Amino acid sequence: MENFTFFNPTRIEFGTGKDQLIGEHLAEHGIKKVLLCYGSERIKREGLFDVVSKSLSEKGIAWVECGGIVSNPVISRVREGIALARQHHVDAILSVGGGSVLDSSKAIAAGVCYDGEVWDLFCGKARVESALPLFAILTLAATGSEMNPSAVVTNDETQEKFFISAAPLFPKVSIVNPALMQGVSRDYLVYSASDVIAHLIESYFTATVHPKLPSRLVESLINTVTETTEALLIDPANYEARAQFAWAATLALNGLTYSGAAGFSYPNHAIEHSLSALFNVPHGAGLSVIVPAWMKWYLDRNPAQFERFAKNVFGVDGGEQGIAALQAWYDKIGTPTHLPQLGIKEIDLPAIVENVQRNVRIFGIAETYTPEVVTAILKNAL
Amino acid sequence: MENFTFFNPTRIEFGTGKDQLIGEHLAEHGIKKVLLCYGSERIKREGLFDVVSKSLSEKGIAWVECGGIVSNPVISRVREGIALARQHHVDAILSVGGGSVLDSSKAIAAGVCYDGEVWDLFCGKARVESALPLFAILTLAATGSEMNPSAVVTNDETQEKFFISAAPLFPKVSIVNPALMQGVSRDYLVYSASDVIAHLIESYFTATVHPKLPSRLVESLINTVTETTEALLIDPANYEARAQFAWAATLALNGLTYSGAAGFSYPNHAIEHSLSALFNVPHGAGLSVIVPAWMKWYLDRNPAQFERFAKNVFGVDGGEQGIAALQAWYDKIGTPTHLPQLGIKEIDLPAIVENVQRNVRIFGIAETYTPEVVTAILKNAL
Repeated sequence: MENFTFFNPTRIEFGTGKDQLIGEHLAEHGIKKVLLCYGSERIKREGLFDVVSKSLSEKGIAWVECGGIVSNPVISRVREGIALARQHHVDAILSVGGGSVLDSSKAIAAGVCYDGEVWDLFCGKARVESALPLFAILTLAATGSEMNPSAVVTNDETQEKFFISAAPLFPKVSIVNPALMQGVSRDYLVYSASDVIAHLIESYFTATVHPKLPSRLVESLINTVTETTEALLIDPANYEARAQFAWAATLALNGLTYSGAAGFSYPNHAIEHSLSALFNVPHGAGLSVIVPAWMKWYLDRNPAQFERFAKNVFGVDGGEQGIAALQAWYDKIGTPTHLPQLGIKEIDLPAIVENVQRNVRIFGIAETYTPEVVTAILKNAL
Repeated sequence: MENFTFFNPTRIEFGTGKDQLIGEHLAEHGIKKVLLCYGSERIKREGLFDVVSKSLSEKGIAWVECGGIVSNPVISRVREGIALARQHHVDAILSVGGGSVLDSSKAIAAGVCYDGEVWDLFCGKARVESALPLFAILTLAATGSEMNPSAVVTNDETQEKFFISAAPLFPKVSIVNPALMQGVSRDYLVYSASDVIAHLIESYFTATVHPKLPSRLVESLINTVTETTEALLIDPANYEARAQFAWAATLALNGLTYSGAAGFSYPNHAIEHSLSALFNVPHGAGLSVIVPAWMKWYLDRNPAQFERFAKNVFGVDGGEQGIAALQAWYDKIGTPTHLPQLGIKEIDLPAIVENVQRNVRIFGIAETYTPEVVTAILKNAL
């Protein structure tokens, strides 16, 4: 076990009906006016907006709407959100949506408190020192953003997908009501499963030190994800499966599964972010393509852990067999495993490789993930 | 999954050398003077006191000593600590020791902020509304108190062992340095293993709802405890085993393993607390006697979970076989499994049963744990 700090002050309010209490949580924190960030108008059609506005009104909390946030959220919309938040002097950000809305909300929360251009915070020119308090109601379980201090946003001018991470960005309260996730499409369910698994396997495989305790926790969560995804594909109304899937997604990236691990990195995310930035593919769909391709390239660097994975997740012997089992499972649930399924061809590889080089610098792994290596990994996915 | 709240704001600083930074953590919280609680003079002989006092001095933090806190800590010493804290106007409590010192520190932190008699907070006459900020350096991994808001103290006049639990009692920072635990005796190591396992199995078996996700996490932690305990019995200097044991102990009672579970209770603790209160037996030693006895009585009420336990923890088939395997494992590591090993005979049972009745009321399980039932469980342990 390497030395570590575990600190996660986010309050998770998990379960049915918890969204009705958002006003109370805001009031407890002394909030009077929020910027209410959301994505599509679906939250209005499906009634969640009414629940939220009623709860806010009951506590005398005003709101300013900031809707239309898209998947693979963009910095231009973040800038608009910052302007709105300043114009209306809100004292908190309320995110109602999935990871894209929440990550945009975090960027807005940080940007409001930063005097310069918000993208500075993403490309390392400045650090997030403070942020408006952030509250979330989650409608899609995947990114784990509800219980961590990180956010990923795409710069739609430069085609860069970069991240920020800083303690002020921990949500104060995140409401996770699995019942709100029953309307998630089949596609987004399987992309979410892929995203959660990617969060779990990055440190599991890449860490130079990955003790058995965190490895066991990772395997417990992956097994939960595979089992509940299959149950939800059969019956999207299975609340129990939806709930365990959601809690596994939260725990997958809240610090728990890599506490005590050391020397790990996020190569799959670094590569996938370029697919999203250049081709606007759903993050989870990009990850289910990259992860098996990366695994095939990485296998010999950590064979024991791949054998462990094969056995404890898929009940098969041998690292290669474990990778094949994961890829077959992705095929079975219907998330892509090859670049052409994303509309990406061999001719596109140089542009991706070039874009990845910026990401691997940001992720601190440029020495290993040279253009040649990234090309080799991408070729595994053709 | 039942609705739940997960909220745990304690910062864990885990690893070697982290105790040297206690002054910095206190200074970050604006602390100027602490009540320094500890147990025996061992921390002075072994150098930890010097490390702490040096770190405090460097940050200009004053301290008042409150030593001599014993295992199964008593409320009379807590009262003395409260008087000292008030007399010297300390603005925080610093606990340097194991669970007994930390629980006493929590009681002092709460008692200083309460106008009445501190025992009121334990027997339900008053609630903990506020407390002095609390910081901890852990020297024994067992109780999980370093990352939860609970404390157990014995009233040495009334022979009651009761608990308090309230959000103000979350430590602000808990330093867990496994290297400080290498001097723990063989006996206290195995008692600690028993304590951690008891924390993990109470909700696992008694919950009316215990989803597979938390069950998997519990099994991951129990398997970590059994494996690392055996490694430490062979080589007490095995830092890796010591570290994974310590982190498993923290995670066993920080909210993680019962989030989503419902209807669970702590019957083994309710019964064991009477053994400690009446006979001053080490808590973990009492638990390794009570747990198998309780399991035999409880088996038929949750047979599927006992089968699961047998298979996933000990690799055996059948609930009875799982209980036998746990008891055999306790025997193997050398923690008691029968009351006579604690010096308790059949003639003592009525007094224990009577004392337990107060505990089961406090724990809210008096309807199930009638004198007849408790007698039956205790007889399983003769």
